[in-house]
Amino acid sequence: MANIKPLGQRVLVKRIEAETKTAGGLFLPDTAKEKPQEAEVISVGTGGRDDKGALIEFTVKPGDRVLISKYGGTEIKLDGEDYLILSENDILAIIG
Amino acid sequence: MANIKPLGQRVLVKRIEAETKTAGGLFLPDTAKEKPQEAEVISVGTGGRDDKGALIEFTVKPGDRVLISKYGGTEIKLDGEDYLILSENDILAIIG
Amino acid sequence: MANIKPLGQRVLVKRIEAETKTAGGLFLPDTAKEKPQEAEVISVGTGGRDDKGALIEFTVKPGDRVLISKYGGTEIKLDGEDYLILSENDILAIIG
Amino acid sequence: MANIKPLGQRVLVKRIEAETKTAGGLFLPDTAKEKPQEAEVISVGTGGRDDKGALIEFTVKPGDRVLISKYGGTEIKLDGEDYLILSENDILAIIG
Amino acid sequence: MANIKPLGQRVLVKRIEAETKTAGGLFLPDTAKEKPQEAEVISVGTGGRDDKGALIEFTVKPGDRVLISKYGGTEIKLDGEDYLILSENDILAIIG
Amino acid sequence: MANIKPLGQRVLVKRIEAETKTAGGLFLPDTAKEKPQEAEVISVGTGGRDDKGALIEFTVKPGDRVLISKYGGTEIKLDGEDYLILSENDILAIIG
Amino acid sequence: MANIKPLGQRVLVKRIEAETKTAGGLFLPDTAKEKPQEAEVISVGTGGRDDKGALIEFTVKPGDRVLISKYGGTEIKLDGEDYLILSENDILAIIG
Repeated sequence: MANIKPLGQRVLVKRIEAETKTAGGLFLPDTAKEKPQEAEVISVGTGGRDDKGALIEFTVKPGDRVLISKYGGTEIKLDGEDYLILSENDILAIIG
Repeated sequence: MANIKPLGQRVLVKRIEAETKTAGGLFLPDTAKEKPQEAEVISVGTGGRDDKGALIEFTVKPGDRVLISKYGGTEIKLDGEDYLILSENDILAIIG
Repeated sequence: MANIKPLGQRVLVKRIEAETKTAGGLFLPDTAKEKPQEAEVISVGTGGRDDKGALIEFTVKPGDRVLISKYGGTEIKLDGEDYLILSENDILAIIG
Repeated sequence: MANIKPLGQRVLVKRIEAETKTAGGLFLPDTAKEKPQEAEVISVGTGGRDDKGALIEFTVKPGDRVLISKYGGTEIKLDGEDYLILSENDILAIIG
Repeated sequence: MANIKPLGQRVLVKRIEAETKTAGGLFLPDTAKEKPQEAEVISVGTGGRDDKGALIEFTVKPGDRVLISKYGGTEIKLDGEDYLILSENDILAIIG
Repeated sequence: MANIKPLGQRVLVKRIEAETKTAGGLFLPDTAKEKPQEAEVISVGTGGRDDKGALIEFTVKPGDRVLISKYGGTEIKLDGEDYLILSENDILAIIG
Repeated sequence: MANIKPLGQRVLVKRIEAETKTAGGLFLPDTAKEKPQEAEVISVGTGGRDDKGALIEFTVKPGDRVLISKYGGTEIKLDGEDYLILSENDILAIIG
């Protein structure tokens, strides 16, 4: 797979199909107004810096299952599969 | 239940049905222009950091009954029940 | 009465009927473009923090009579009476 | 007169009729695109604080004649006369 | 002339008629999309303060000929002549 | 080739044709809602400064293959080929 | 020529006709969506100050050939030639 290193505070994620029910019973309804989607974090970005120049650490790490907003990010296709590059701020939650 | 850890200053809440009248007599009218809703805090997020890099503590904690704006947050369904992920800033008040 | 603790820099106020003329002769005309309303402060919030992390003190206190903008805040009903939760910044003045 | 203490950096002013020509010959034309109005400062607010927590002093004081933008502020009526509550930032100039 | 002291970082200027060609040959065409205008600085304001509370000094001074944007500021009439109160930031250049 | 030095945090990039499949198999679908595009970094800018006046270093360097948003930047033509000047913040990822 | 000193971080530039091909072969196509234009820096402004009050130095200097966005700045005519006053931030690149 091509090595994609997101810039700044962006992360690269891979969507998990909506019909996949998680072990804990998470289910994402089709009827929700703003439907979040499950995704897996593939890689985190080069990092951002705060107002004092200190590196901002990522809260998510590769392998984390996350909930993302349906409308955020930019789609790319890689080896036939869909990926998204989005800001870590657009990740709603980590599914533990 | 799946473990959902909200990212940053977000919290996970579970709505309490509107017809539920609280012990203290709180009643949320159907006719209010922007009707708030009662909810219970399920979990708080990974936390944010202020401009000086200090961790921002949450004011609410799991188990708190809160008033939330009707239109904020993102809905998710978990084990057949509706939950919301929303920013702590969108919580109007704690019902004590 | 249910104990409602507003979050952050919000305050809970109770509107005072517009026909109530204050001792000092304050009268709020129906024709004013953006008509303010009199209200009584019931409780102040959990407080906010400034950029340096210091707690921001409230200028109003419970019992203060205040002028609020007609359109701000979120309405709630409690024991049959209307209340408003609004930011302290949306309070125009204290009526002394 | 009811004691009205504006909150934060707001001031209470009383409009001076437009036909009143000042001693210095100031005249406010009806045809000006954004017509400023003369007003007298009645009282200043409780004050704001800057980013470092220091109290911001008011530049105007009660009794100052000022020019205000026609469209700013909120109208209130007090003892039969019109007053305005507006931010000090919306005062254009002091008429000396 | 009435003494007009602009508030904050505002300045009071007097327009110079567009047909007045400056000594250096500056000419302001009627066809320019956003036509600047020549003006003379009459007085500077009470001054603003930066984020650290230090007084911000004015770059222009009374008597300076300046170029201002056609659409900025608020018009006032004083002793039969047009003046403008505008922010120093809306002054494009000093004509030396 | 003319020497083009972008100002501030801008970079100069040259688009890589969309049909070019990278060694790693990156493929950019025509149907993606906001289609990113591959580009090569030609030169980086004169640099920006953060709030404390420290120079902000570029994360990308000349020769890097990057993904850019389809709609960002300003097109220029140089020796018959298309280039883009865009902010480094509009580069989504580095293709390694 | 009249001496025009731009205020703050503005610069005064003189457009170079689009048909002028630079030595390095830079050519600006008519069909580009947002067509940049070549210009020569005539003078730089009085300078701005950053958040800490330090003077911000200009990156461009008089005599530099620059690329500017087609839509930025304010046109003035001086001794029969067109000039532009624009913010240094609206200069895309220096042509070396």
